[in-house]
Amino acid sequence: MSPRNIRLVVEFDGARFHGWQKQPGLRTVQGVIEDAIAEIFQQRCEVIGAGRTDAGVHALRYVCNFPADTEMDSARIPLALMAVLPEDVVVHGAEDVAPGFHARFDALSRRYRYLVSTVPVALRRGSVFFCKYYLDVARMIEAASFLAGCHDFTSFTPALNEANPECDLREILIEDEGGMICVTVEGNRFLHNMVRIIVGTLVEVGRGKIEPADMVAILSARDRRTAGPTMAPHGLAFVSARYSDIPDLR
Amino acid sequence: MSPRNIRLVVEFDGARFHGWQKQPGLRTVQGVIEDAIAEIFQQRCEVIGAGRTDAGVHALRYVCNFPADTEMDSARIPLALMAVLPEDVVVHGAEDVAPGFHARFDALSRRYRYLVSTVPVALRRGSVFFCKYYLDVARMIEAASFLAGCHDFTSFTPALNEANPECDLREILIEDEGGMICVTVEGNRFLHNMVRIIVGTLVEVGRGKIEPADMVAILSARDRRTAGPTMAPHGLAFVSARYSDIPDLR
Repeated sequence: MSPRNIRLVVEFDGARFHGWQKQPGLRTVQGVIEDAIAEIFQQRCEVIGAGRTDAGVHALRYVCNFPADTEMDSARIPLALMAVLPEDVVVHGAEDVAPGFHARFDALSRRYRYLVSTVPVALRRGSVFFCKYYLDVARMIEAASFLAGCHDFTSFTPALNEANPECDLREILIEDEGGMICVTVEGNRFLHNMVRIIVGTLVEVGRGKIEPADMVAILSARDRRTAGPTMAPHGLAFVSARYSDIPDLR
Repeated sequence: MSPRNIRLVVEFDGARFHGWQKQPGLRTVQGVIEDAIAEIFQQRCEVIGAGRTDAGVHALRYVCNFPADTEMDSARIPLALMAVLPEDVVVHGAEDVAPGFHARFDALSRRYRYLVSTVPVALRRGSVFFCKYYLDVARMIEAASFLAGCHDFTSFTPALNEANPECDLREILIEDEGGMICVTVEGNRFLHNMVRIIVGTLVEVGRGKIEPADMVAILSARDRRTAGPTMAPHGLAFVSARYSDIPDLR
């Protein structure tokens, strides 16, 4: 009998992780989840994630899947795994999915949010970036409108010779609630550091250092040096991934 | 010339503090603020807080005041203090107030919130208490209605021989947003541990272990053993204090 294919929805605090992907000798989310599965189900397997996350980046509803040789009711799997997982990883759900489901290949889009506050933060300092400058949010919204849609995002990644720099940025939303600015992006795919550089560029626009309409030239330059800085990882969170059977990303 | 009287609005992450009040050899919020004032203004003084907070309890807009021998523009004081304060304390505002203003004596009421989630939490685990049991929020709201108003809250404090156990609980509000339950209380004063025991009792009601109408008997028993357990400190935050010139506590 072939093993079941279990999909997990996971939240993690990225502060003490070197990102999602397993790396020898480093604490990663994939690593601790695979260890938890090994302990609970007495099996080693690879957990497939919806995408890489950088060191320090959080996730609210990260999606991953793994082949499970167990008869445990899927409703019991979250608590079973959390019994052995560290406190910075939480399993919000587990369910059986089709044998061919693949968390990375089947993701239709991914959603991230970045929190920037122009008011200093104490309690939420682990997930909010404090920007000490005044930010003109209307200018940031205008600049963001130039980034929406299909573009070559080479200027927004440090990766050289990116095989496919085309990304479809399906949504880019900027909300400001009393100085807490939330930038939400959804795209079919993202290049390395792309969200953090998009936000870094929008912050420069908000500060008045770059004009909103400059976004057009920055995109067409295909040159990392034309965009703004890479924002710190702790303000970023992977919100969720969309699949044909998980249409809602909120 | 008598010193100015400066009022601060402060946020702090209580996790690494032994509460507000200075204690020899322990890290307290009052202690680090007094040290920061000493460093910036070259003066030792006592900072008067709106009330004590227990070890591990947070604050969003804590109010305190101190006598300052300085000519610094009050608008510059927050950044000056934050230059030397640790990252878990933030100063949101500073302003000159009347010479007689006293953050504790003049507080008309204090507001706290307690966050209980029936969904596990990773990112917000430092400020949300995870309750693994199903909670019937409608029952909790009904129970809370019996606690609103002026009562002898002896059953809701471990303090023996409390000189004045009468408190006016002016508001007790329970909101549930997708399993994140927020209990907000406002009162003229609170006894030691009172908010955490109120929430602990409401959680017992939500779990079905205490009936909502039992609140009447628990209040009149004037016996700590009749109420529920003291909730962990990390779910609690001092929201703000109301003064004659600060009417809004939101």
